[in-house]
Amino acid sequence: MPDPPRVGVDVGGTTVKLGAVDAEGSVLGERSVPVAGVADVATILDGMAEAVRALAGGPPAAGLGVGMPGLIDRAAGTVQESPNLPAFNGCALRAELAARLDVAPELVRIENDANVAALGEARLGAARGERDVLVVTLGTGIGGGLILGGELVLGAGLAGEIGHVTVDPDGLACGCGSRGCLETLASATAARRRAGAAGLTDDLAELADAARAAEGPERALLDAIGVDLGHGLAAALCLVDVRTFVFGGGFSAALDTLEPGIRRGLVEWAYGERVEEVRLVRAALGPSAGWIGAAHLTVAG
Amino acid sequence: MPDPPRVGVDVGGTTVKLGAVDAEGSVLGERSVPVAGVADVATILDGMAEAVRALAGGPPAAGLGVGMPGLIDRAAGTVQESPNLPAFNGCALRAELAARLDVAPELVRIENDANVAALGEARLGAARGERDVLVVTLGTGIGGGLILGGELVLGAGLAGEIGHVTVDPDGLACGCGSRGCLETLASATAARRRAGAAGLTDDLAELADAARAAEGPERALLDAIGVDLGHGLAAALCLVDVRTFVFGGGFSAALDTLEPGIRRGLVEWAYGERVEEVRLVRAALGPSAGWIGAAHLTVAG
Repeated sequence: MPDPPRVGVDVGGTTVKLGAVDAEGSVLGERSVPVAGVADVATILDGMAEAVRALAGGPPAAGLGVGMPGLIDRAAGTVQESPNLPAFNGCALRAELAARLDVAPELVRIENDANVAALGEARLGAARGERDVLVVTLGTGIGGGLILGGELVLGAGLAGEIGHVTVDPDGLACGCGSRGCLETLASATAARRRAGAAGLTDDLAELADAARAAEGPERALLDAIGVDLGHGLAAALCLVDVRTFVFGGGFSAALDTLEPGIRRGLVEWAYGERVEEVRLVRAALGPSAGWIGAAHLTVAG
Repeated sequence: MPDPPRVGVDVGGTTVKLGAVDAEGSVLGERSVPVAGVADVATILDGMAEAVRALAGGPPAAGLGVGMPGLIDRAAGTVQESPNLPAFNGCALRAELAARLDVAPELVRIENDANVAALGEARLGAARGERDVLVVTLGTGIGGGLILGGELVLGAGLAGEIGHVTVDPDGLACGCGSRGCLETLASATAARRRAGAAGLTDDLAELADAARAAEGPERALLDAIGVDLGHGLAAALCLVDVRTFVFGGGFSAALDTLEPGIRRGLVEWAYGERVEEVRLVRAALGPSAGWIGAAHLTVAG
């Protein structure tokens, strides 16, 4: 009998994305369930369970992984607080899904949505086959997901926060309460702010195009942002010696223009030689990364 | 039949320390084999093998862990370069020991000496029972060993180097080629240098005693060094969310005088609230940490 399909769920603000992969990583199917406008969590859970059964051909024998935005209690399998999906606050997600799916609660694993997306990229995406990966999301802020030995690193629960490593001790105040965090220097938001301050376009695609086309202030700015990124990533090189960095989020489209700066920043703040072995790659799975990673919560790396 | 004893070996510049623990962590026996003045590696290896057999009551059925200073090739089980024990350079340590002990080579595990000492403190020492620990050695430089989920983190081979996290980008040049690394600010060497520059005693025990006795420049200096340490450790809090830090090395005797500064530094450079949950403790196993950690290389956490 072949291995049962691995089913994953990624709960988002407007839709729930679901899918199944086989043991070789081939996508067996994808579905989505609307969330926006549905006031009743039970209706969403019913829709999720129905889609999971359809993907698995019945109860998911291999278990189910769920990515959920916000703060989750992994041990209890509950949603503590989900700012973008307040209807889920306090939801006993694991028990609710296990009951609807006729599986034991311990077969339902719940994880933060950013972490499952990172796991997806590590297992089947841009870093497929690699054991140690830091996934860095360059969006409104800078998110991170750290995979070591093929498994998500959680620490006491908040691991992977590369966006809040201090890069400029005298820098701008960050929403986290510190100053000069990496995300104050190199998120998409920060890049737009720095571009505006330099009198350049704050459209990051245009900015990157200008940097690609010719020497000039656009290239200099993206290079400087790259150096700041490299300084932040150097902490990961020192501490866990991860050498593959996967970049997601909107601003990752500019990775080619950031890369020279990132490498110089890494050399400046970490032992130099191994920087040659560092891989900087863009995320590959797009919006499917979340459910694919969630599907792998049930399987050791 | 009871579990066979776990045997560990810690190769040092003057002696090889060996010992055995049982599955509950009780020390069954300790030995040492002289190294200083012995020119012939084969003689040292013979002595090690004899001591291992004596401790294990025959070939070590559970395998053998070995801590070795310098660069090792874990996959090959060889010593690439050991600056303090050049006689071992190029030694096929795993094969040599396996042959002398009549065990399969895969039962002999070799690891860096600093890493095995960290593993010892995590498994049976100051952080016994905790899954996630950063062991920080405040000596001539600052060494580190990171344990997550009870297991050593190696990354591409050089993980745990908290001493080379950049804390002061405009600071002093470090031996590693970077500038303002944590170890340029807070190693025993750095503390002596900073004390001398401030016109204070460079005897670190006296310095700490003066700081304990009264307000004054000694207390202010140790507080400032603590803040720098906290800034460096904040990177570990952000990236792997480790909340137990174990301090070894000579300067760790001053931990009580450093702690207020460390906590302020952590709050400044990492999310504040969880700093209250951070434990800062001194290493507990002394010179036995190495062999005890080595003995645990053979057993999953």
